Amino acid sequence: MSVLIVGSTALDSIKTPNAENPRLLGGSASHAAVAASFFSPVKLIGVVGEDFPKKYLQLYQRHKIDLEGLQILPGKTFHWSGEYEANMNNRRTLATELGVFETFTPTLPKAHQDTPFVLLANIAPALQHHVLDQMRRPKFVVADTMDLWLNIALPDLLKLLPRLDGFVLNDSEAQQLTREDNVFAALEKIHKLGPKYVIIKKGSHGSILSGPKGFFICPAYPLHTVEDPTGAGDSFVGGMMGYLATAKGSIDDNIRRAMVYGSVTASFCCEGFGLTRTTKIKRADIDRRVKELEKLTKF
Amino acid sequence: MSVLIVGSTALDSIKTPNAENPRLLGGSASHAAVAASFFSPVKLIGVVGEDFPKKYLQLYQRHKIDLEGLQILPGKTFHWSGEYEANMNNRRTLATELGVFETFTPTLPKAHQDTPFVLLANIAPALQHHVLDQMRRPKFVVADTMDLWLNIALPDLLKLLPRLDGFVLNDSEAQQLTREDNVFAALEKIHKLGPKYVIIKKGSHGSILSGPKGFFICPAYPLHTVEDPTGAGDSFVGGMMGYLATAKGSIDDNIRRAMVYGSVTASFCCEGFGLTRTTKIKRADIDRRVKELEKLTKF
Repeated sequence: MSVLIVGSTALDSIKTPNAENPRLLGGSASHAAVAASFFSPVKLIGVVGEDFPKKYLQLYQRHKIDLEGLQILPGKTFHWSGEYEANMNNRRTLATELGVFETFTPTLPKAHQDTPFVLLANIAPALQHHVLDQMRRPKFVVADTMDLWLNIALPDLLKLLPRLDGFVLNDSEAQQLTREDNVFAALEKIHKLGPKYVIIKKGSHGSILSGPKGFFICPAYPLHTVEDPTGAGDSFVGGMMGYLATAKGSIDDNIRRAMVYGSVTASFCCEGFGLTRTTKIKRADIDRRVKELEKLTKF
Repeated sequence: MSVLIVGSTALDSIKTPNAENPRLLGGSASHAAVAASFFSPVKLIGVVGEDFPKKYLQLYQRHKIDLEGLQILPGKTFHWSGEYEANMNNRRTLATELGVFETFTPTLPKAHQDTPFVLLANIAPALQHHVLDQMRRPKFVVADTMDLWLNIALPDLLKLLPRLDGFVLNDSEAQQLTREDNVFAALEKIHKLGPKYVIIKKGSHGSILSGPKGFFICPAYPLHTVEDPTGAGDSFVGGMMGYLATAKGSIDDNIRRAMVYGSVTASFCCEGFGLTRTTKIKRADIDRRVKELEKLTKF
């Protein structure tokens, strides 16, 4: 089955203590779509400007990402630039130029409205609602978010949560949303807001799922060096949804393994700037690391 | 086989946002010894003053801890008081009264010098050296430490490391020791300082082992509320050493499971002030949580 992914499609200029890379392909939907593409067919919903480099369209195409839902509009592509601190955890935004993204209205081609798996990658909750409004009975809907929407669009986000099967956020966002320092207490509170599956991402510490079958402690793949963590969270949820869309059996049967696949896909993302490393790997590279992770966690 | 444990034996007055508990049994050796006692015979090396409550001696005895190496000297027992912040991660010391601990020289009874497993729980590195000097060819020696010794006794600690089989420290201490933010890079650097087994504790995120057979990602047991984390790290390493001392087979065969047993023992420690919860559980309670952790990490 295929996955519909909506989110930002951007050009990212990223500075780390070791290097600087201008105008890389970025955005939550780009990262999630490439990650999901290792496992299942992907339909991308997004917007770019006329300045969007052809090579990035070709990159999507190499990953067999359906671009019927990608609008190319007069104007500039969304451009984000940011800088990471030495520990690679804290980053600050240097500039945000919204360009065509400012007035983006995600309109779904007819053929997309029956897609069974829907990933509402990080984007304004109002746009996540708008995409869901156009879908006909999807099988499994997951949304990601970021601190910005907790700050400026909380009512929209709270209205979205009951419409979701799964909700993914990181630990600091979970703390901000629930005022709970304890991850397990936060998970419980978020369930009460609607979603049946809640996943809290903890960066290099892995992630925790709380679902109908209880908790799952998902490991992160050990990385000796992190080149650039931008997009790791999007890769995680993209890989997870891609894996789920093709796995046989129920969501409950597959979601743990799907998270591990997402986690490993995210590990490749961290090893290069933007999508440079992720676009060089093959499914077999992911399978290999998943097997390694099995060994690294066995006791 | 039995485990010899040296460390601090103290009275702890602990304040958290929810409660305050004066003069509880504490100290690294107390926590580690009680944790190890669920798995194997323990010989405690420490010092207390004449004010040390009889009920705490009886507590050690209920856990069948050999007290031949516990000195009871004229003067006051080491007293530590501290306060935790709301997130239970940051704590500050309110007062430290060393008492008889100030001039403590751990002298081993003859019968103790052949103990095969040695845990040098958190205490001044000079005293850890002094205990090792008195041992005859122990089978497996592990040391724990704390930031204080990195600050005031680093040369002693660096001389200790090549004498150890295993070294256990938490993530912020590993960062301080190696100037590496990345856990896996830090582990590599610490190996070069001597120990074959290095374990970095990450609190509620679990712990990472690096040993001859590679990495092991050890989960933490999910806790919904943490009453008091004091002694959790000592319980972890105590439980681990206790398990190792009785497990059949090589260290490599058992160390992963030993860490999981340590991790679970530490989870009980966090659920009560001082040792109040740990001293109420049975081995079967630990076994139950280990089985649960197996389920919580399977994929």
